[in-house]
Amino acid sequence: MVHDGDGYPMLNNEEQKAAGELPLTYPPFIASISKRGLNLSEVICEVFTLGWYGEQNTKRAVGVMCYYIDGTVNFYMRPIEGVMATVDLDKMKIVQYHDRLMIPVPKGEDTDYRESVQNPPFDTRIKSMTMLQPDGPSFTIDGNNVRWANWDFHLAFDMRVGPVISLASIYDHDMRKYRRVMYRGYASEMFVPYQDLSEEWYFRTFLDAGEFGVGICSVPLQPNTDCPPNAVFMDGYYTTRDGTPVKTSNVFCVFERYAGDIMWRHSETILPGDTVEVRPDVTLVVRMVSTVANYDYIMDWEFKQSGSIKITTSLSGILAVKASAYKHKDQIQEEVYGTIVAENTIGTCHSHYLSFYLDLDIDGDANSLKKAHLQSVRVTDGSSPRKSHWTVVDEVAKTESDAKIQLGLGDQTEIIVINPNKRTNVGNNIGYRLIPGPLAGPLLWEHDYEQIRGAFSNYDVWVTPYNKSEKWAAGAYIDRARGDDTIAKWTLRNRKIENKDIVVWYTLGFHHAPSKKISQSCLL
Amino acid sequence: MVHDGDGYPMLNNEEQKAAGELPLTYPPFIASISKRGLNLSEVICEVFTLGWYGEQNTKRAVGVMCYYIDGTVNFYMRPIEGVMATVDLDKMKIVQYHDRLMIPVPKGEDTDYRESVQNPPFDTRIKSMTMLQPDGPSFTIDGNNVRWANWDFHLAFDMRVGPVISLASIYDHDMRKYRRVMYRGYASEMFVPYQDLSEEWYFRTFLDAGEFGVGICSVPLQPNTDCPPNAVFMDGYYTTRDGTPVKTSNVFCVFERYAGDIMWRHSETILPGDTVEVRPDVTLVVRMVSTVANYDYIMDWEFKQSGSIKITTSLSGILAVKASAYKHKDQIQEEVYGTIVAENTIGTCHSHYLSFYLDLDIDGDANSLKKAHLQSVRVTDGSSPRKSHWTVVDEVAKTESDAKIQLGLGDQTEIIVINPNKRTNVGNNIGYRLIPGPLAGPLLWEHDYEQIRGAFSNYDVWVTPYNKSEKWAAGAYIDRARGDDTIAKWTLRNRKIENKDIVVWYTLGFHHAPSKKISQSCLL
Repeated sequence: MVHDGDGYPMLNNEEQKAAGELPLTYPPFIASISKRGLNLSEVICEVFTLGWYGEQNTKRAVGVMCYYIDGTVNFYMRPIEGVMATVDLDKMKIVQYHDRLMIPVPKGEDTDYRESVQNPPFDTRIKSMTMLQPDGPSFTIDGNNVRWANWDFHLAFDMRVGPVISLASIYDHDMRKYRRVMYRGYASEMFVPYQDLSEEWYFRTFLDAGEFGVGICSVPLQPNTDCPPNAVFMDGYYTTRDGTPVKTSNVFCVFERYAGDIMWRHSETILPGDTVEVRPDVTLVVRMVSTVANYDYIMDWEFKQSGSIKITTSLSGILAVKASAYKHKDQIQEEVYGTIVAENTIGTCHSHYLSFYLDLDIDGDANSLKKAHLQSVRVTDGSSPRKSHWTVVDEVAKTESDAKIQLGLGDQTEIIVINPNKRTNVGNNIGYRLIPGPLAGPLLWEHDYEQIRGAFSNYDVWVTPYNKSEKWAAGAYIDRARGDDTIAKWTLRNRKIENKDIVVWYTLGFHHAPSKKISQSCLL
Repeated sequence: MVHDGDGYPMLNNEEQKAAGELPLTYPPFIASISKRGLNLSEVICEVFTLGWYGEQNTKRAVGVMCYYIDGTVNFYMRPIEGVMATVDLDKMKIVQYHDRLMIPVPKGEDTDYRESVQNPPFDTRIKSMTMLQPDGPSFTIDGNNVRWANWDFHLAFDMRVGPVISLASIYDHDMRKYRRVMYRGYASEMFVPYQDLSEEWYFRTFLDAGEFGVGICSVPLQPNTDCPPNAVFMDGYYTTRDGTPVKTSNVFCVFERYAGDIMWRHSETILPGDTVEVRPDVTLVVRMVSTVANYDYIMDWEFKQSGSIKITTSLSGILAVKASAYKHKDQIQEEVYGTIVAENTIGTCHSHYLSFYLDLDIDGDANSLKKAHLQSVRVTDGSSPRKSHWTVVDEVAKTESDAKIQLGLGDQTEIIVINPNKRTNVGNNIGYRLIPGPLAGPLLWEHDYEQIRGAFSNYDVWVTPYNKSEKWAAGAYIDRARGDDTIAKWTLRNRKIENKDIVVWYTLGFHHAPSKKISQSCLL
C-alpha cells in the first residue's frame, strides 16, 4: 500500500548524518563561521525536524543548526545562534540558509560533564555498593519471553517505539492458571514542544517516536551504572534505509529491584505475643534508554508481585539552550522564552508528553472504562452528627467522548479498567486502576499547528476500541504531517467502547521551566 | 502554664490498655458476647477517640469497640459490629454502652496474613537478594548528627510526631562550606476521616499525631525486611504518663539506597569517539514505622546527592472494615459507605492526610514563597507561524492568604521557596521547589466538625511566619478539641510572609475507596 496522504516516514540515520555535514562545505556557512572567528573543525551540526505550520506543499526537509565544541563534549551548551540551513533530504542539498544574528557562543568552561575532567574533583566520597544474588536471578528469559515471580510476558524491541510488552499475564495461585492483564503496551509517541517563537526555534515541537525513532535512538546500556550489577542484558536490531540490520547491544536490561522498600507490613502489639510480618518489595524492571539528541529518556516497565505494573520515564541528559547576548538576569527586559542559566545561555521552556498505548485485556479482551467519582455528600437531615461525607459514584464510559479525560481539574476521579463479564466471589468487577503520576495539562492553544499534531496531550486519558491501524497517538506518517491521523481525529467518530477490546492511551507529561544553575549532577 | 482552652493532651498507652479491658468484665458486654454465641476469651477491644461534634461539655472519654480473634491474628477483619462502650478516662469506667445490631462476625478463614499459616504456601519463588557494601557505609552518625555525601543533618525522635530532621545543610564544593536548607522538618499531624455515618463510625476522624502519638506508636524495625541489610539502627525513647522512660529499639534505620536507578546520564554519539557518562543514583534514607492500630505508616526522609530531599509516606497494614449482613454486592441496596471486600465485610471509604511542617531556611532564614505560574500565551499579531506558547509568570506571596494553595485545579503552578536576598552569578534567586506527589483535595464540607479540626487538609500548601507556638497543624491539645488552634485559624491574621523566616506546611493526601479483593500481599 502506497501512502498518499500528508506526512513522511521516520528519518533515518544515514540521511541525518549526511544533512548534518552539508554546512561544513557550504561556502556561506563557512563565511558565517569565519566572521565569528570560530574554527570550522570544531563545529558540529544537528538535524531538526520542521513540523508543519500551514504550508500548502511540503517536502522531506529538515533544519540544520550547529554547535561549537572546542574543548568540551557538551556542545549543546554552545549553540551558534541565528544560523540555520534548510536541507532538502531527497536532493540532499541546502535549499535555504540564513545568518541573522551575531551573538556570542557561550563559553565552554565548566560545561564538560565528564567525571574525568571535573574540577573540583567529582564527589567520590560514596563508597561502593552493589546488589548480591548468591543464587542467581529469579527470572528466566526464553527467547523474548520473560517469567518472574507471578508474571509472564513477552518483550520486543521496536525501532520506532522501543520496548513493547505483550501478553503480560499474572499467575493466580487459587485458580492455578495465568490470567491475562495486558495484550500489548508501549510508549506510542513523544511530543516535545519548545516555547521559543524565534525563527530558529518556533518549529522545535518534536514528535520523537515518529520523526526520529525512539528505538533507533536507543543506546547500549552500561553494565553497573545504567543497570545494577545483577542485570541481564538483551540486544536489539533495527534496519538502515537499505534494509541492513543494525544491532544495538545491551538495548534492554532486565533486573530484580530491591530498594529497601516494604511491599506490605503489619506489627500487631495488642495480641499476646507480638506479631510482626514484613514483606520486602522486590520487583522486576525492564529498562531501555533512548538518547534523542540532547535528552536521554530512561524508560522502565516495572512488574510488582502485588500485580501492579509501574511505568516510569525519567528524563536525563542535557538541557537545550539558546545563545543570548545577556550575561545577567537584570539585563533582560524582553521575553526570552526561558531562564538565564549561565552567561549567554538561556534554558528554553518546553514540555515533554508521552502517550502510552495500553491494550489491557483484563481476564479477557472485553473490557470497559469505569470512572469512579469521589463525590462529596452533604448531610442536612440531622440523621448524623456529621454534616458531610464522601462516596463513590461509578460511571462506565459508553463511547470515546466519555473517555476523554483531563484529570486534576478538581474532580477527584479514579480511572479503572474493568472486565464487566467477570466478578469476584462477592460480586465486584475484576479490574486494574490507572494511578497517574504528577500531571501536566496542555498549555498550547488547541488549534495551534503543533498542538493539532500532538493533540494526544489534550487529555490525560483517551480510550479507543482496538483498531489495528491505530498504533501511534500522533499518526503513522508524522514528519511534516498535518495532524489528520491523530487520536483526536480517530475519536471524533465517537465509537462505542463499553465491553469491547479497548485500548487506553495515557498521557504522561512534564513541563520544564528551567530554573537551576547548571550543575554536574542534574542538568534537567 | 496550665492549658485552659478546649482539647486534651495525647492519650497514653496505660489508659488505652486499661480502657480496652473494661468491657471484658462489664456484665452487659459479657451478655452481648454470650448472646452472639462468641467466646469472651477470644475478644479483644480497642480504643477510639471521639472527636468533637458540637458538644457543649466534653470530658476525656473514648469509645471502645471489640473484635473477635478465634484462630486469626487479623482480628481487624472480625469486628463485633454495633456494640460500643464509652469510657470516661479520668474515672476509668464505662459511662455509656449500647448493643444495637446483631450482625454476623465475619469469618476468620483466609484472613491470617502470617506467612507461616498461608495456604496455598506464600509465594517464595523469589531467590534471596541483598545489598553489599564491602567498605561499609558512607555515612557517619555522631550522636544524633548524620553526615553523608554532601549532607549534614540532625535526626531526633519525638513521641508525638516521630522523626524530626533539623539543621539540614548541604556542602557547596565551590564555596567550601555547608549551606543551610532546612531548619526543621517533620510530619506535624495526620488526619484520617472515615466516611461511614453510622453510630459507631461517624466520629472516626482521627488526628493520629495529637491523639495517639505517631512516635508512641512507632515499632521496632525488623533488620533485613523493614530495612535492607546495610541499614544502621537507632533507638528512641518516650515517657509513660508518670515519666518512666520507654525505649523503642531500632526506631529509626538509616541506610544508603541504590535501587538500580540513574541519577544522571548522557550518551554522546555524534562526536568522534562516543562519550557515555552515567551516575548511579545512591541516596540516604531515614525510616521510621508507626503502627497506629490497623495502619502502618512507613515514613521516609530521603536525601539526594543532587540536593533534593524526598519525603515519602507509604501506607501499609490492615484495612479497617465494618461487619455487615451482606454476602454479595447484588444484595446491597443502601449506602454502605464502602465496598464489600469479603462476605459480611465492608471496606470503609476514608482519607489520609499528613501535614508536613517544613521550616526551610534556604541559605539563611529570610525566605519567600514564589508561585511560578505556567501561563498560556496566544500569538495573534502574526509575528510567528506559531499561534501560542507558554511562559512563566512569577508571583511572590506577600501574606498568608496568598499562600493558601490548592494545587491541581487546572492552574499549573510551581511552588518554589526562594531566598530573595541571595542570587546566583547570573542573577537568579536561590531556591528549592516543592514537587508534590498525586494530590487528594478535601471532600468534606469545610464547616463540618471534623473538617474544622483537620482544616489543614483544605489546602495543599500553607505558609506561616515562624512562631514557636505553632508546631502542629491541628493544634496542641487535640483530643476532643474544637478546632480553635489550627493552621486555618492562625492564618486568619493574614500575617506577612515575604522575606521572613517562613514555615511551609505541605499536605500529603490519599483517598482510599477500597476496591480490592483482600490478598495476602496488599491489604490497602
